[in-house]
Amino acid sequence: MVSGGPVAQAGKREAERGVSLGARYDAVRAFTEALCAPLSAEDYVVQSMPDASPAKWHLAHTSWFFETFVLEPAARAVGVSFAPFHPRFGFLFNSYYVGVGKRHSRPQRGMLTRPTVAEVYAYRQHVDARMRALLMEVAGGAHANLKATIEVGLQHEQQHQELLLTDVKHLLAQNPLRPALREDGGEHAGGVETGVVWGAAGTTGAADAARFIEKEEGVRWIGHAGEGFAFDNESPRHRVFVAAHALADRPVTCGDYLAFMEDGGYRRADLWLSEGWEAVQVQGWEAPLYWEREEGDWQVFTLHGMRAVDPRAPVSHVSFYEADAFARWAGARLPTEAEWEVGAEGLAVEGNFAESGRLRPAPVTTAGDEGAPRAMFGDVWEWTASAYLPYPGYEAWAGTLGEYNGKFMSGQMVLRGGSCFTPASHARATYRNFFPPSARWQASGLRLAR
Amino acid sequence: MVSGGPVAQAGKREAERGVSLGARYDAVRAFTEALCAPLSAEDYVVQSMPDASPAKWHLAHTSWFFETFVLEPAARAVGVSFAPFHPRFGFLFNSYYVGVGKRHSRPQRGMLTRPTVAEVYAYRQHVDARMRALLMEVAGGAHANLKATIEVGLQHEQQHQELLLTDVKHLLAQNPLRPALREDGGEHAGGVETGVVWGAAGTTGAADAARFIEKEEGVRWIGHAGEGFAFDNESPRHRVFVAAHALADRPVTCGDYLAFMEDGGYRRADLWLSEGWEAVQVQGWEAPLYWEREEGDWQVFTLHGMRAVDPRAPVSHVSFYEADAFARWAGARLPTEAEWEVGAEGLAVEGNFAESGRLRPAPVTTAGDEGAPRAMFGDVWEWTASAYLPYPGYEAWAGTLGEYNGKFMSGQMVLRGGSCFTPASHARATYRNFFPPSARWQASGLRLAR
Amino acid sequence: MVSGGPVAQAGKREAERGVSLGARYDAVRAFTEALCAPLSAEDYVVQSMPDASPAKWHLAHTSWFFETFVLEPAARAVGVSFAPFHPRFGFLFNSYYVGVGKRHSRPQRGMLTRPTVAEVYAYRQHVDARMRALLMEVAGGAHANLKATIEVGLQHEQQHQELLLTDVKHLLAQNPLRPALREDGGEHAGGVETGVVWGAAGTTGAADAARFIEKEEGVRWIGHAGEGFAFDNESPRHRVFVAAHALADRPVTCGDYLAFMEDGGYRRADLWLSEGWEAVQVQGWEAPLYWEREEGDWQVFTLHGMRAVDPRAPVSHVSFYEADAFARWAGARLPTEAEWEVGAEGLAVEGNFAESGRLRPAPVTTAGDEGAPRAMFGDVWEWTASAYLPYPGYEAWAGTLGEYNGKFMSGQMVLRGGSCFTPASHARATYRNFFPPSARWQASGLRLAR
Amino acid sequence: MVSGGPVAQAGKREAERGVSLGARYDAVRAFTEALCAPLSAEDYVVQSMPDASPAKWHLAHTSWFFETFVLEPAARAVGVSFAPFHPRFGFLFNSYYVGVGKRHSRPQRGMLTRPTVAEVYAYRQHVDARMRALLMEVAGGAHANLKATIEVGLQHEQQHQELLLTDVKHLLAQNPLRPALREDGGEHAGGVETGVVWGAAGTTGAADAARFIEKEEGVRWIGHAGEGFAFDNESPRHRVFVAAHALADRPVTCGDYLAFMEDGGYRRADLWLSEGWEAVQVQGWEAPLYWEREEGDWQVFTLHGMRAVDPRAPVSHVSFYEADAFARWAGARLPTEAEWEVGAEGLAVEGNFAESGRLRPAPVTTAGDEGAPRAMFGDVWEWTASAYLPYPGYEAWAGTLGEYNGKFMSGQMVLRGGSCFTPASHARATYRNFFPPSARWQASGLRLAR
Repeated sequence: MVSGGPVAQAGKREAERGVSLGARYDAVRAFTEALCAPLSAEDYVVQSMPDASPAKWHLAHTSWFFETFVLEPAARAVGVSFAPFHPRFGFLFNSYYVGVGKRHSRPQRGMLTRPTVAEVYAYRQHVDARMRALLMEVAGGAHANLKATIEVGLQHEQQHQELLLTDVKHLLAQNPLRPALREDGGEHAGGVETGVVWGAAGTTGAADAARFIEKEEGVRWIGHAGEGFAFDNESPRHRVFVAAHALADRPVTCGDYLAFMEDGGYRRADLWLSEGWEAVQVQGWEAPLYWEREEGDWQVFTLHGMRAVDPRAPVSHVSFYEADAFARWAGARLPTEAEWEVGAEGLAVEGNFAESGRLRPAPVTTAGDEGAPRAMFGDVWEWTASAYLPYPGYEAWAGTLGEYNGKFMSGQMVLRGGSCFTPASHARATYRNFFPPSARWQASGLRLAR
Repeated sequence: MVSGGPVAQAGKREAERGVSLGARYDAVRAFTEALCAPLSAEDYVVQSMPDASPAKWHLAHTSWFFETFVLEPAARAVGVSFAPFHPRFGFLFNSYYVGVGKRHSRPQRGMLTRPTVAEVYAYRQHVDARMRALLMEVAGGAHANLKATIEVGLQHEQQHQELLLTDVKHLLAQNPLRPALREDGGEHAGGVETGVVWGAAGTTGAADAARFIEKEEGVRWIGHAGEGFAFDNESPRHRVFVAAHALADRPVTCGDYLAFMEDGGYRRADLWLSEGWEAVQVQGWEAPLYWEREEGDWQVFTLHGMRAVDPRAPVSHVSFYEADAFARWAGARLPTEAEWEVGAEGLAVEGNFAESGRLRPAPVTTAGDEGAPRAMFGDVWEWTASAYLPYPGYEAWAGTLGEYNGKFMSGQMVLRGGSCFTPASHARATYRNFFPPSARWQASGLRLAR
Repeated sequence: MVSGGPVAQAGKREAERGVSLGARYDAVRAFTEALCAPLSAEDYVVQSMPDASPAKWHLAHTSWFFETFVLEPAARAVGVSFAPFHPRFGFLFNSYYVGVGKRHSRPQRGMLTRPTVAEVYAYRQHVDARMRALLMEVAGGAHANLKATIEVGLQHEQQHQELLLTDVKHLLAQNPLRPALREDGGEHAGGVETGVVWGAAGTTGAADAARFIEKEEGVRWIGHAGEGFAFDNESPRHRVFVAAHALADRPVTCGDYLAFMEDGGYRRADLWLSEGWEAVQVQGWEAPLYWEREEGDWQVFTLHGMRAVDPRAPVSHVSFYEADAFARWAGARLPTEAEWEVGAEGLAVEGNFAESGRLRPAPVTTAGDEGAPRAMFGDVWEWTASAYLPYPGYEAWAGTLGEYNGKFMSGQMVLRGGSCFTPASHARATYRNFFPPSARWQASGLRLAR
Repeated sequence: MVSGGPVAQAGKREAERGVSLGARYDAVRAFTEALCAPLSAEDYVVQSMPDASPAKWHLAHTSWFFETFVLEPAARAVGVSFAPFHPRFGFLFNSYYVGVGKRHSRPQRGMLTRPTVAEVYAYRQHVDARMRALLMEVAGGAHANLKATIEVGLQHEQQHQELLLTDVKHLLAQNPLRPALREDGGEHAGGVETGVVWGAAGTTGAADAARFIEKEEGVRWIGHAGEGFAFDNESPRHRVFVAAHALADRPVTCGDYLAFMEDGGYRRADLWLSEGWEAVQVQGWEAPLYWEREEGDWQVFTLHGMRAVDPRAPVSHVSFYEADAFARWAGARLPTEAEWEVGAEGLAVEGNFAESGRLRPAPVTTAGDEGAPRAMFGDVWEWTASAYLPYPGYEAWAGTLGEYNGKFMSGQMVLRGGSCFTPASHARATYRNFFPPSARWQASGLRLAR
């Protein structure tokens, strides 16, 4: 149970936004299932690598979250005994909450052909029915202390919506048939493509050059405060000294990245961090993940199948090491997360998100006169130069949910902005995503600073 | 294409047995699908370890075998161009025939969520339709040269029927829910249990003591010759000098094996081969595979779920190392394959095979007066003391099918007799099965010699 | 060749300190060999793990550094052809300078029984003779551009003096005989022990409790500037906003750490970062490296053999994960490197360094009235909460020596203050040492903040 | 203690041969040290791979063998308490005798820089002094029961003489300097080279073609019986049925093998066992171990440094897989161990052994008129087609020495004949050497059969 802190006023905010918690619950849960609609039963089961989870597991785990952190405490609070849907699901679908009890080994998640997909959907429906009953009581004023945790559960499910898409993409990419998840092209999806002519001809063009937006030095505030949901790792809002710098007004595109590749970017040790160069050698990297060369042309695997690489679209599926090497090659660097957040101040959280159905980065728009940063949100998560560490004065949520973020604060780098796989309502300027520097299966790109 | 040798007279033999090749094709193919009937779509996909294959892969690979080694040569022989069902299935479903072309990596077989189960069945039906048309022509006297290869294809599919069962068992056993593949108990299945009282009470009994059947020394013939199908590795029939010895009249039972365990069998290094002792230490072996202790009682995972260990049934799922250590503990040894084959001379090939539906070893029957060996066939494959090596004068089949057996003649031990997962018509006295000495996921047990 | 920046005025500084570069060269090189005096020929050769190097390799690599980065450019500068001591030593003793050419594989360093120890010493003498001749010319005003690189070579050799000691310690600790490198006890070595009664009785005591020194918030300057040598990673001097905090006036002692252990520190997942908890499980950590329990008492391996753990001495050979877990258990945290550096401002760089011959942490002194931090320098490197990242505006040295530090700026944490293995003249307040968070074979401890 | 069986009449035999056990002890022990004479202290310490042991370890282990299996029982037999040279050497220098007690981990043997080489020699001298005293008593008739074990100890030390040479060769070969152990060329060493012109010119020739010696089928006796030492694995002498076959009159030479290589031997999957082909791919094999191509010419690393490959010399350092593939390419096969032993009947045990100082295979002599097999003994161990399994009726030696051979009877293949690293008096026709099929660091070659 989460108490206090950033989520305390959740009820008030909902009312202000005019959307009830119950309606949001329904919408989030339905969106998860909508994303799964094109999956075959077979697609739900397989785990393509230890870092990924089967789609079925995501469906069950997010339900287990509500069952464990909301339904069971609610029953206990009124002195009612609680029987979970299945006595062993707590073991199977707990991800990493040591405080809750023993868990199935993560790399073994793909061994679970049972429960079947149908049984997992039955589990979801069971949890949904109980949750809706509870949400009625909450709307009536009961269980006020659980509202914050319910909000966490919804945010948690949105995170798994993104993971589900990236994990399914990784799985399908292992298949030599390179099967498309969705047969519709997705070309016309995504509001950001207005005015852009898409097609075979269009892909030969290039985005306009990036401009650098100057910022003066000074003590700045970053991090979350006030109303609206945020994870514990975004708090407390605090001061940092930010030196004078400039931030590119658009992400690095595939066209930019091809120039790096053609200039020997993957063969020049001097451009790389030592760990990155070792990854290049050991993993045999010579392009972003999912890129394949066919008769001289670069193709990329997407959830709509193999596509020509679009030079105007932000480059995606690069590791931190690749982002860092590109920046060095370009005579620039990655921004710190403080620089990124300062750069995002005042911008609307709009862009190419999961709802568009495009599910791959869209070509960047042409810069307008106002010189505002383009595509800060959506398309690709942007690697920063900052290690994922606690903010000064950071305190993890109380109780078992304190394991949510804090214990992962080593060995990872911060990414900002959300991607084409992120639900739109999940993105915000203070959001700190984090992955190991070698990770490539997320929709991760970069923006330059200097 | 297989030419000459042991399979040349296949057509003649069929006629003698009164079963047409076409009828046998239908029966074998149907039995494969019958074995799959209890599988969920999810069960078909997952690969539980690199040595195992998904059920779906078995279904497709056996069909690819007919498509590649029968249908395509048949088309070529009459100058007709041949289009396979799918242009990439040759890549996906070739197992290890280097001569046929490149293959999908074996440990990646579980990544293939596509083709779906339904598509694989469509593939089977496509191949079946073509095969039936061809078999009609064969029955009419055409394509006589393909009859031997068709026979190999049927034997090959029978081998995969056994592997399919052992692989599915291994997969389900990884699941903490220990799900049963079949909900019926299987207790009354299998003809060998006549007169045996099964049940909680019955399992407390023990089989009668093994008797040793004496054999005099001499030069003996072993190996296959004459009519009837045999694999190349069973030939040529040849002479071996067999010293005087005695062979136990029944396999080692779970009751025998429990005595070994209770006497510290897994803790006494002096009983083990060096490699075996290392396996005990590194793998943490302390009982046969699939045995679990619950509150002091040993249970065993079967395709019908968890069951009490039956002391009267042959012990199964032990490695060669365990078989060897047990024999040393018992003051005996494993028989050589020549001793085993001499011991099986003249016996009817009868026992607890896959058709019984029992799918686990049955209690051994009480010895009769005639002193004949019991349960030589079915129940469990019996580890021998013989390495899997070519017989003197061995020649692999001609052509690509020469890769079938010969290239695996290193690092493995011979097993004899067939198991509860083997189709009855697939077993014979000269049959040489082979697995690495550490393998435990097959239904492998032992019989003593001295 | 290093040009410009922090080392440009090296000549001037030497003159001010009254020590010529030549005299320092002799002193540093001699100290390396003095540290090796107790080694047997056998001790010089073996590599105990991929992260460690044989003592012989350290001796040769530091000589190669001068040969490659000083002697060869000096010869080239005056148009003289240059022949290295041995044509293959450049391959064998280059560590990681990709720009210099191909290198022997790091994990294979222990395979090199040849050149022998005697040959490596001959190599050193050869380089020394040439360097002394060059240093005479430098003293006379020639080769002014090489002075900075010579200074780097000396600092580099000092780093390897510490690594040599830690690597030899790790090697000897692998030996079940737990051999002492030095037979003298080292008890009376180290100036910091004045007034402390050492011995069996003495070790039962405990250090006085740590006091926390409060610091106000504000923008502070950290990093190196001005005269005196510093590595490129200590620059540029720059501003950071430091929040109000308190820093402990002494390191965490073995006595403190024993309390953590006795309170189940290694068994409570909630105290650990996720990666740390995995290390505890996989590596089986239950005490600092080199600690062994004998009949209930904790002993620790030192370069003087096994010793009783001294509760008053700073705990050493703990990983970042252990330091972080201890801090969480203690209700505190690790300081950032900025906090540490601010805390060290104005302190004399004094402490228990390698020259003392003690080669293990000394008991902390009793706090004085003035409330100054104790043991900030020497004894143990102190893990900070800061990832090893470039300072804002960081620029690597020009040329090949740019590989010295910059390319390691990922996946590591910063440590501060120097240890009992660090040469005294090598320590300074701005020095940024760095190791992966799992590393334990360095003399690494911690100090609390909050 | 060894009792009974093949070694029981050791004393009698010695007398017949006119060499006392004491004199043989001195000779064997001295030969070990003579082989070590060219080693530097550094060469003694390092372990180049888990399968190899440091030279120092061999020196100590062979001494520990006498201390443990002879000196201690001798003391106990007369009621005298026994103190080993060092209380921990039993732990450090026991190889694999589980029955004796716990042992240092094999892959860690290279970590032991202490005891130093000098201390190990002191250990040897200590054991030698005690053994000589005991041997005097034995010569006087006492301790008759220990004579067999002393003989085993001498044979054991001879085995380690060979291993010491092969392990040192492997170690030096890891060094990019490719250092020679012995600076003398060794060209004129070895009695078998009489009449052969050696040199740059001579190496361009080829050996005369192999002739095949026909053998009729029949029941034959193989194995050891009668007087003279033999290991337990050579017994009992027993009958085997050997089919008609032919055995080549000389080993396969480097010239033969080059033809295989030039014909694409390492690129044709159809020539290889499946495990062998995997080794080719994974290990990147393209020539025998120690062969290196320099500007088109094949060189080979020897204990005398890099040498041109001699086409007339037996090929060495090939695995069983390579031997098997070569035989298949040549349209032949490897002989069984029975065929080899039958072929060696009546031949004098003469050839190029370790005493010659050549330490690499010598060119085969030209065939004489009598058609006798050439080079059956010495030069290279010859892989057979036989797995290393117990002979019918095999019984391991009694007591702890029963671990000597029997427990390794799985996963290995038999080699026959001895090599250029084998002491001459250690070879005999019934000797069964054994190594895993992938092993290449022994002096292993082959002879064809068909």
